[in-house]
Amino acid sequence: MPVKKTVKSPKTAVKKNIPKKKAGADAKTATKTSGSEKKYYYYFGGGKADGAAHMKDLLGGKGANLAEMTNAGIPVPPGFTITTEVCTLFYENSMEIPKAIDKELEKYVAMLEKETGTKFGDPANPLLVSVRSGAKFSMPGMMDTVLNLGLNEETVKGIADKTKNLWFALDNYRRFIAMFGNVVLGLDKDKFEEVITKLKKNRRIKQDSSLQVNDLKEIIKKFKAIIKRKTGENFPDDPYIQLRMSRDAVFRSWNNPRAITYRRLNNIPANLGTAVNVQVMVFGNMGNDSGTGVGFTRNPATGEKEFYGEFLTNAQGEDVVAGIRTPQPIKELAHDMPDIYKQLRDITNRLERHYRDVQDFEFTIQQGKLYMLQTRNGKRTVQAAIKIAVDMVKEKLITKEEAIMRIEPHNIDQLLHPRIDPAAKYDVIARGLAASPGAASGKVYFTAEDVIKYGSKKDTILVREETNPDDIEGMNVAKGILTARGGMTSHAAVVARGMGKCCVSGAEAIRVNPAKKQFQVGRLIIKEGEVITLNGSTGEIILGEVPTIDPEFSPEFAELMTWADEIRWLKVRANADIPRDAEQAIKFGAQGIGLCRTEHMFFAEDRIPIVQQMILAETPEERQAALDKLLPFQRKDFKGLFDVMHDKPVTIRTLDPPLHEFLPRKEEVEAKIKALDPKSEDYEERLEKLNRTIKRIDELSELNPMLGHRGCRLGIIYPEITEMQVRAIIMAACEVAREKKKVYPEIMIPLVGHVNEFKNQKELVLRVANEIINKQKVKDLNFMVGTMIEIPRAAITADEIAAEAEFFSFGTNDMTQMSMGFSRDDAGKFLGPYVEKGILPKDPFVTIDQSGVGELVRIGIEKGRSVRENLKVGVCGEHGGDPDSIDFFHRAGLDYVSCSPFRVPIACLAAAQATIRHGRPESNQAKKTKTKK
Amino acid sequence: MPVKKTVKSPKTAVKKNIPKKKAGADAKTATKTSGSEKKYYYYFGGGKADGAAHMKDLLGGKGANLAEMTNAGIPVPPGFTITTEVCTLFYENSMEIPKAIDKELEKYVAMLEKETGTKFGDPANPLLVSVRSGAKFSMPGMMDTVLNLGLNEETVKGIADKTKNLWFALDNYRRFIAMFGNVVLGLDKDKFEEVITKLKKNRRIKQDSSLQVNDLKEIIKKFKAIIKRKTGENFPDDPYIQLRMSRDAVFRSWNNPRAITYRRLNNIPANLGTAVNVQVMVFGNMGNDSGTGVGFTRNPATGEKEFYGEFLTNAQGEDVVAGIRTPQPIKELAHDMPDIYKQLRDITNRLERHYRDVQDFEFTIQQGKLYMLQTRNGKRTVQAAIKIAVDMVKEKLITKEEAIMRIEPHNIDQLLHPRIDPAAKYDVIARGLAASPGAASGKVYFTAEDVIKYGSKKDTILVREETNPDDIEGMNVAKGILTARGGMTSHAAVVARGMGKCCVSGAEAIRVNPAKKQFQVGRLIIKEGEVITLNGSTGEIILGEVPTIDPEFSPEFAELMTWADEIRWLKVRANADIPRDAEQAIKFGAQGIGLCRTEHMFFAEDRIPIVQQMILAETPEERQAALDKLLPFQRKDFKGLFDVMHDKPVTIRTLDPPLHEFLPRKEEVEAKIKALDPKSEDYEERLEKLNRTIKRIDELSELNPMLGHRGCRLGIIYPEITEMQVRAIIMAACEVAREKKKVYPEIMIPLVGHVNEFKNQKELVLRVANEIINKQKVKDLNFMVGTMIEIPRAAITADEIAAEAEFFSFGTNDMTQMSMGFSRDDAGKFLGPYVEKGILPKDPFVTIDQSGVGELVRIGIEKGRSVRENLKVGVCGEHGGDPDSIDFFHRAGLDYVSCSPFRVPIACLAAAQATIRHGRPESNQAKKTKTKK
Repeated sequence: MPVKKTVKSPKTAVKKNIPKKKAGADAKTATKTSGSEKKYYYYFGGGKADGAAHMKDLLGGKGANLAEMTNAGIPVPPGFTITTEVCTLFYENSMEIPKAIDKELEKYVAMLEKETGTKFGDPANPLLVSVRSGAKFSMPGMMDTVLNLGLNEETVKGIADKTKNLWFALDNYRRFIAMFGNVVLGLDKDKFEEVITKLKKNRRIKQDSSLQVNDLKEIIKKFKAIIKRKTGENFPDDPYIQLRMSRDAVFRSWNNPRAITYRRLNNIPANLGTAVNVQVMVFGNMGNDSGTGVGFTRNPATGEKEFYGEFLTNAQGEDVVAGIRTPQPIKELAHDMPDIYKQLRDITNRLERHYRDVQDFEFTIQQGKLYMLQTRNGKRTVQAAIKIAVDMVKEKLITKEEAIMRIEPHNIDQLLHPRIDPAAKYDVIARGLAASPGAASGKVYFTAEDVIKYGSKKDTILVREETNPDDIEGMNVAKGILTARGGMTSHAAVVARGMGKCCVSGAEAIRVNPAKKQFQVGRLIIKEGEVITLNGSTGEIILGEVPTIDPEFSPEFAELMTWADEIRWLKVRANADIPRDAEQAIKFGAQGIGLCRTEHMFFAEDRIPIVQQMILAETPEERQAALDKLLPFQRKDFKGLFDVMHDKPVTIRTLDPPLHEFLPRKEEVEAKIKALDPKSEDYEERLEKLNRTIKRIDELSELNPMLGHRGCRLGIIYPEITEMQVRAIIMAACEVAREKKKVYPEIMIPLVGHVNEFKNQKELVLRVANEIINKQKVKDLNFMVGTMIEIPRAAITADEIAAEAEFFSFGTNDMTQMSMGFSRDDAGKFLGPYVEKGILPKDPFVTIDQSGVGELVRIGIEKGRSVRENLKVGVCGEHGGDPDSIDFFHRAGLDYVSCSPFRVPIACLAAAQATIRHGRPESNQAKKTKTKK
Repeated sequence: MPVKKTVKSPKTAVKKNIPKKKAGADAKTATKTSGSEKKYYYYFGGGKADGAAHMKDLLGGKGANLAEMTNAGIPVPPGFTITTEVCTLFYENSMEIPKAIDKELEKYVAMLEKETGTKFGDPANPLLVSVRSGAKFSMPGMMDTVLNLGLNEETVKGIADKTKNLWFALDNYRRFIAMFGNVVLGLDKDKFEEVITKLKKNRRIKQDSSLQVNDLKEIIKKFKAIIKRKTGENFPDDPYIQLRMSRDAVFRSWNNPRAITYRRLNNIPANLGTAVNVQVMVFGNMGNDSGTGVGFTRNPATGEKEFYGEFLTNAQGEDVVAGIRTPQPIKELAHDMPDIYKQLRDITNRLERHYRDVQDFEFTIQQGKLYMLQTRNGKRTVQAAIKIAVDMVKEKLITKEEAIMRIEPHNIDQLLHPRIDPAAKYDVIARGLAASPGAASGKVYFTAEDVIKYGSKKDTILVREETNPDDIEGMNVAKGILTARGGMTSHAAVVARGMGKCCVSGAEAIRVNPAKKQFQVGRLIIKEGEVITLNGSTGEIILGEVPTIDPEFSPEFAELMTWADEIRWLKVRANADIPRDAEQAIKFGAQGIGLCRTEHMFFAEDRIPIVQQMILAETPEERQAALDKLLPFQRKDFKGLFDVMHDKPVTIRTLDPPLHEFLPRKEEVEAKIKALDPKSEDYEERLEKLNRTIKRIDELSELNPMLGHRGCRLGIIYPEITEMQVRAIIMAACEVAREKKKVYPEIMIPLVGHVNEFKNQKELVLRVANEIINKQKVKDLNFMVGTMIEIPRAAITADEIAAEAEFFSFGTNDMTQMSMGFSRDDAGKFLGPYVEKGILPKDPFVTIDQSGVGELVRIGIEKGRSVRENLKVGVCGEHGGDPDSIDFFHRAGLDYVSCSPFRVPIACLAAAQATIRHGRPESNQAKKTKTKK
């Protein structure tokens, strides 16, 4: 039988597609030394293993884990691991295993035979093995596996005898042939499936399990014929040939296209290679003294410390998964097989202590003997993760630091918002971006006005093409917000996150028609008043109402957060504009307000007409009159914030957005003009006013508002605006101070690019502030004047600016826009494809771009502190709530991050993790000890 | 007579307004040492002076110059300079001269008396002096002067006797009193003017010169009465008191408001102080052997070497200026006073040789004796400046380097464009920005279409609210362009400068109404077809036609440019998109094309429909079909450029602007839809197409197009566009190469922010290029692939990018926009006030912001060359043609600058000046010797 030829055929075919690395000489050298010095096989079995857990580089994750378990006295089916170095040699040696190494294989098979009392190819007592890949990093399903290896026409009978189950033996055999044909010989899976499908059709049966023994025999015959026809060779009966071919196939699968893609996406180096694990097969279906099951050492849903899982007697693992028979709760194993149960509890307890984490395990009982097939750290819900971590600290299993490191900060978000009941079933009609987490059901309305009108009586969802600052009151009233345009940092997304309100943005599939009061998804039309549900955590848009679950905090969560607070170096503040948000922030543990956007105070219904009057003013006097009317409002707002924040600092930013954002849209005004009644008494007057508004809208319109007349540029051209705001801030602060309460206002000038801009505004602030303080005779009112660093030039010249500014707050949203040249409103069109194509690793508006934008932050801090050693430096962009960015900010030496109130716990945890990971940042070491506040 | 009191009164008054610096102790110390060691007075006279030209710090510019002239044997009225150190002591000593120094004054007056044979206060032969300020840097008219000091009731008679002119003596006396009253005593000038005005009215005369002797006597009386009434003191008769008070007044004037403002605007340090010059008065009106005149050593308009100027016998300087008598050409002085003429020629020749530059001099002849009152380097036209500089090199008076340094590069611009005849008179109706130099008259039209329609038959001016790329053909046809909106780097300005076409942009005073085919300035309406003239060098908009002068190049200009080319280190390339511009660039000396904007080729009438078809394509196939049609156009364009540029490098940028720029405006399409005839056969089809266009316009519209989907982001999302362009470039290059001609294409990828973007496009370029080159079997076709560095992130990560890119070209326009956060289209609203308020020193779009944007350029070069030592680095923004920016680019170590063809000579000259100023940049020293090309 020309077995050799059978081997070569598929290998040659694959060889063409994989570039040779180094062939010939090197491989020979390897062959020479292999027997004498290097160890290429690692045995495990009989309570002892050559390898250990730390040898993942050499043995891969699975191999190292099997060795570790064996050494820990856990009953594991014996086997051996062929190292990743052999994989490298395989590729270097023209896709062949160097001869000496190949020869050694037999020695290890012999050890398995000895251990199990079986023999490869022995018709009476055959050795069957599995051949599995196992790289350093888990690549689930990406590489190949062969099971039941060792079966042939002879040994299949032996298995049938041993298990007293011919059907089972034949079923395994046909599966093995198909798997071998597909994985090793490279034949199409469907070719084999077709045979079965056809046969089942003939027999008028639906389930594989209904096939009869004769059917299986026929299938096996046909499978073998396929192999003969397609490869020109017979299916190899020799178990050693089966093994060698399977081993090579697993090595080859390291470079199959889906593995290559997976590695690229997960940043796994291509030169690691995979190990090959050869392990004795065990069977749970050898009678009523056999069985199989899966379990967790603690409840993965709640975190309760309870033995959790299920099992089936006389069954294989597939049976549990396939759902043909209903498995029993694992506790019943105590009744069915009390010894095995005791042994399992004992083993899994040891495993949990050994790995110091909840274990997700698989086991098989073969004729009264328990084998552990796999154990790994169990996946769990975030609620469970928190309870388990905190419990384990109390059990002295892990440290507080370890507990903190085990929680993925992003996942905490689930705890803070209502979420869709996991038990609910629903239809998703479209998807957008998961812009602000949480879930909400409500009737749809298409204008902020309508939402305000109906929102007090019923739950509403505001649906807009995109939102703008005019909509803010409506957004506040709505339960959720849906927009057709705009990215993760669009107006809707940013404001919704700030409000802790569910939002799906950029749902490009929906077409919003406010005129018709409806939106459309494909042919489906949803009209005003119809109910939809939004899932802001997934971006799903759902027709109708779906039950939701309200958030609740466990005592364990509170405890974990206390530990995080003790450990973290970075302070965490919140972005909050109104007392209610500030209260929320305090509840979540914020240590101050890092950004109060004063303009948000301008949008309230009772203020916006005055703001517009200010903007339409034609003389400084008119403008001053409007500002005088705004002053008491702002003063009250600030007083409210100071009262809530008590002894914590409050950073207040002077007016930032361009003035045109406060004006109505041109079309709206034009519509109003059309609607005017020429016969009405005040027609002339109203027409004139509306025309003036249009003229001003035109004057203020900008081609690139992002780079336009905003930020401190407003305060410089219209100093009276800054003056009013400073007056309101300082008057409110004086009022608080006179009540003998503490107050720490930090006045922040936005969009400074040149130190002279800051100087101009600082002079104004100091003049106005000192005037008021002197007049009101308030003593020791501490306030600071600092600036946003958000323009690239500001970072580049931070030394000049720090000579004047008392603090910096990096506005990394705008800095990302400007230093990368991305408009966050428009970049959606190409940012998605950019991340898909691997041009950018992540959306830079979600996680800070460290080498570009981050470098500017580093430059800014370094230059700033070179001039003012104790310069307080924070960040108040969206990145302030992103864990990866927080890790960077920690290393960069910032003093605090500021984020929306609902992200404060996430930021606290991420900050603690950064401290654990990196220690305290060197540049800031000294400072911590020096300054208390 | 309580003279002392008279002195104190005004001083005290002024003292209050000037802050004391250090009083008391210091002043005493100064007083002690003053007499013994320090020299506070510098005498000049009798052919010898204590000072010299290099002592400007101590003597001020005027004092140093008077000393220099005296030492050079030039007859200068004798005098002495009180040093700037005394000014400092004066301020330190509570606004009083330390006593010892004050005492010394008399010694120097005595020297003057001896020199002139006159005496202070001598009724027979009185000494009269002038007291003038003189700081290190000229501050014309900012500080105070007192003339005719020494006159009183006695000495005025002596002068009358000496000049035999009582009227003259009295006139001088009344002027002196008024000047003293105003400058020294701080009284209002108008108080004195009123007296004269009233008297003239009474006498029914109009000219001062018609006043009679008695009138003058009455005026003097009244003047003295004013002083008595206002100050409570009599006018001081004692010349020493007059002198001391005047001296102090001059010192005080250093800190008058207008001097402070002037210093701030001109960056003159406030602590320099002024010197005081006391000089003997001479009179040109002492008879027919007296006279006065002004002149130049060469013709300041043409540069011809001819004695040039005019004089009046028996007259004072004011008479020449006042225009009461017509002065004679200076050559006639040879006839009238041959000795004096010879002496003057001799002196001025010596002055020119001494100062090595054209001299602008003033002289007075007093009773047959020639005095030089002033000499300074003469102002001249740029034509004259070039001729004089080149002539002086030939006369071996100056070096080539000095000749080059004497030409202000900006001024060369005048030579390259038509300009308004300086003799023409005209009315300016409005002003805009001087966006693109030159002058043009033509009939106004309000759309590009109309300009194209009428432009072949008559001169046209395109008037637009602002231009956009659609207008480019119209701009090409028009003689000049006028826009109501947009700054110095708006579309209109940039394109017009590229075309060398006159443009006035951002004329905010005009209101353009294309619908009515008219524009309005205030109440003036200018309708289609009416003629206006634009002066793009001044920003003036003129009603009607004004004669213009065509540019012409002198042989001296050509010679100067040759010298500049020999000296300069920076290479100069041109930004040119079409062969005609490239030809112009070569004519002006460009060494290559630094930027070919391929998109400009898309706007031609026969191409734009195909481009739109490409954009409206709904499938990649449709898009490819359109691109296939564009390919031959682009290929022909590139072939044309390569042919013109011959052996010089041509940098071609792949498509840069966002696609929406190629689509018509939404309103236009909507208008077309309205105009459709529903009864027409193809109504449905046309409607569908127009609706599709609208949909696409909406899809492509961006909130901030500047930061939107453009540059390499287009090429990455639509690789087929880049592919077509590369195909066209390489096919054209192959064609040229096969003609055995040289060709050096440099393919430039725009808007790269991340190295992965560049990699993506480079791979595409190499794949397509090599495919063509292999197919066409062209050998040794050298082409490079490089990138624009215009996004701040690109500069920050230039090391990563340089590992891939073969050259960098800084796009400092966009880099200024992004790193400063200024949209150049919108920034006009605050950039003007910013420069006025001193927040920014200059418009950063005109001259590069060195500490911010420039720092990014430096970082980019340093990081880039750290990875690729020989990285070729250029700049192709507007700054490439700005002399100050070029000086910076030279120091930063760039290899070349690229600017619009019409600025090439300016850039060449500025580059030569930078080399002369700074030598070769160190960082680039080695390279120059290594690489030849």
